[in-house]
Amino acid sequence: MSTDSEPLGEFDLVRTLFAPLAGEGAFSLEDDAATLVPTPGHDLVLTKDALVEGVHFFPDDPPESIAAKLLRVNLSDLAAKGAKPRGFLLALARGPRQSSAWLARFAACLGQNARAFALPLLGGDTVKADQAMFSLTALGEVPSGRMVHRQGGAPGDALYVSGTIGDAALGLALRLAPGSVWGGALSEADRAHLLDRYLHPQPRMALAPVLLAHASAAMDISDGLVGDGEKLASRLGRTVHAAKVPLSPAARAAMALHPPLLETALTGGDDYEILMAVPQENTSAFEADALRAGCPVVRIGQLDAPGAPHRWLDATGEPLSFVRKSYAHF
Amino acid sequence: MSTDSEPLGEFDLVRTLFAPLAGEGAFSLEDDAATLVPTPGHDLVLTKDALVEGVHFFPDDPPESIAAKLLRVNLSDLAAKGAKPRGFLLALARGPRQSSAWLARFAACLGQNARAFALPLLGGDTVKADQAMFSLTALGEVPSGRMVHRQGGAPGDALYVSGTIGDAALGLALRLAPGSVWGGALSEADRAHLLDRYLHPQPRMALAPVLLAHASAAMDISDGLVGDGEKLASRLGRTVHAAKVPLSPAARAAMALHPPLLETALTGGDDYEILMAVPQENTSAFEADALRAGCPVVRIGQLDAPGAPHRWLDATGEPLSFVRKSYAHF
Repeated sequence: MSTDSEPLGEFDLVRTLFAPLAGEGAFSLEDDAATLVPTPGHDLVLTKDALVEGVHFFPDDPPESIAAKLLRVNLSDLAAKGAKPRGFLLALARGPRQSSAWLARFAACLGQNARAFALPLLGGDTVKADQAMFSLTALGEVPSGRMVHRQGGAPGDALYVSGTIGDAALGLALRLAPGSVWGGALSEADRAHLLDRYLHPQPRMALAPVLLAHASAAMDISDGLVGDGEKLASRLGRTVHAAKVPLSPAARAAMALHPPLLETALTGGDDYEILMAVPQENTSAFEADALRAGCPVVRIGQLDAPGAPHRWLDATGEPLSFVRKSYAHF
Repeated sequence: MSTDSEPLGEFDLVRTLFAPLAGEGAFSLEDDAATLVPTPGHDLVLTKDALVEGVHFFPDDPPESIAAKLLRVNLSDLAAKGAKPRGFLLALARGPRQSSAWLARFAACLGQNARAFALPLLGGDTVKADQAMFSLTALGEVPSGRMVHRQGGAPGDALYVSGTIGDAALGLALRLAPGSVWGGALSEADRAHLLDRYLHPQPRMALAPVLLAHASAAMDISDGLVGDGEKLASRLGRTVHAAKVPLSPAARAAMALHPPLLETALTGGDDYEILMAVPQENTSAFEADALRAGCPVVRIGQLDAPGAPHRWLDATGEPLSFVRKSYAHF
């Protein structure tokens, strides 16, 4: 390993740190391009999410967390489309903070995650910049014509979410205001849970086949359930019950200390859970299959007629409104 | 069009500027992912090149030139692999200089190039950064198992290059030292030619089927013919004749004024021409097919036995050496 005073050049960086991650068809990252042999009868599913230092992660976040998040936010998109991972390409812009040692830790954790999620590295590019940026293209596949769309769904379809909502947004709030009264009053375990959920999204890969079998529409929730939720089957109205949204014990504890955090949880970013619409006749099988896959889902509302309002209701059935529906990086 | 004082947000930016570029399977950029239906009997070919402001382009380069270069450097990799373009994904990091008007010009020219080269936009991500960066993943396809590799080739195969070499490196030299004696002595037309070749690479797409038919190895020359050339069939020796390397009249005029520019031309970057190895028995058909495709190729040397030296010879047969073999951004 080079020290910081002997930085690895692009060629050595690729050869020593990233070539070990290369999958079949990547030719040890020594060719101009990679090949991917599509499975007959399948469509490729393509997605791309970039992370920028100081925008999508803190400059002092551990390289392992950034690597994990980079891969997982893209995997989350594949899962929401019902796709099975096939591989990824990475553009890595190295800023002044990314020493060779930093990059070695980043690459090692990227490799661990790539293996864990069966998403081999196929190719990429390494460049120099004033600020670190990582742009990842993930490829997956679905049986021909079967990608689960955002704009599916029909009036009456039930709306579900995976996991718990808002943990990451509360974790980010803890990072941004470490001296907050509610943060200081939380248990250490609850604080750790929320901070970890911000740093380490859990893409719901096991839900992909369940979505293929049962869902009429789905999307990844990355910028807040309220705002993102309007983009699912957007031509249809919907009724969502805030009290049914699944919350972790840590999130409940935070909200008990500071009730406005409910809005933070529902409109904050970085959930990387899946919002799904499921026809009524499929709901029982869907819930059972999701549970069997280890990814329980919770019903939070339903789609209504075209042009009907997008309504959020509180526990008493009164309409809820939000100051800001989504988390905006841009 | 928004003015700079009313910058477009991410959603509007994508909807107004980039959605019009979206191809089939991109769902107007309104889904989490795109689909690509692979042609039966074909492999996907995947490549990724990123451009960073101040590293790969000048901050005051016109947005049209940056858009054209971004698409074309990736197309050049597809061409070198014998691949037919299918589509691309783009991560756009918007820096402080990228006003909405700038981005509108960028997107318009990206669209023109995408249509011209039949490479539709499939998806991407837009983020905010302190410095502009564009990361593009290009997808192409080749008949199954037929991608033209860097590490093909056999002793005795002829080495060819497309187009002319070094124009872009001389154009960059003109940009970096605008007051040079040789630059000042060049004709306006020669200066314009070299500057244009730096800004606007010409990917040799028409050579792709010719390579598939005849070449044993190929690669895109982006960081200098001498240095990149060592990476083709790297286990084999080679003999290359500097006097045979095709030069434009503008490059010859520059070298007549300042002979050391030959080394700049042979080791500078941004050619985006193709270096190819062709078995002796294919050379006549290869040259004829390349000419018919409108991309003349020039024979510059041959591959030698495994472990033999990588030799560059001058016009008298004397060995040539170079201070620096490649252009290094990193």
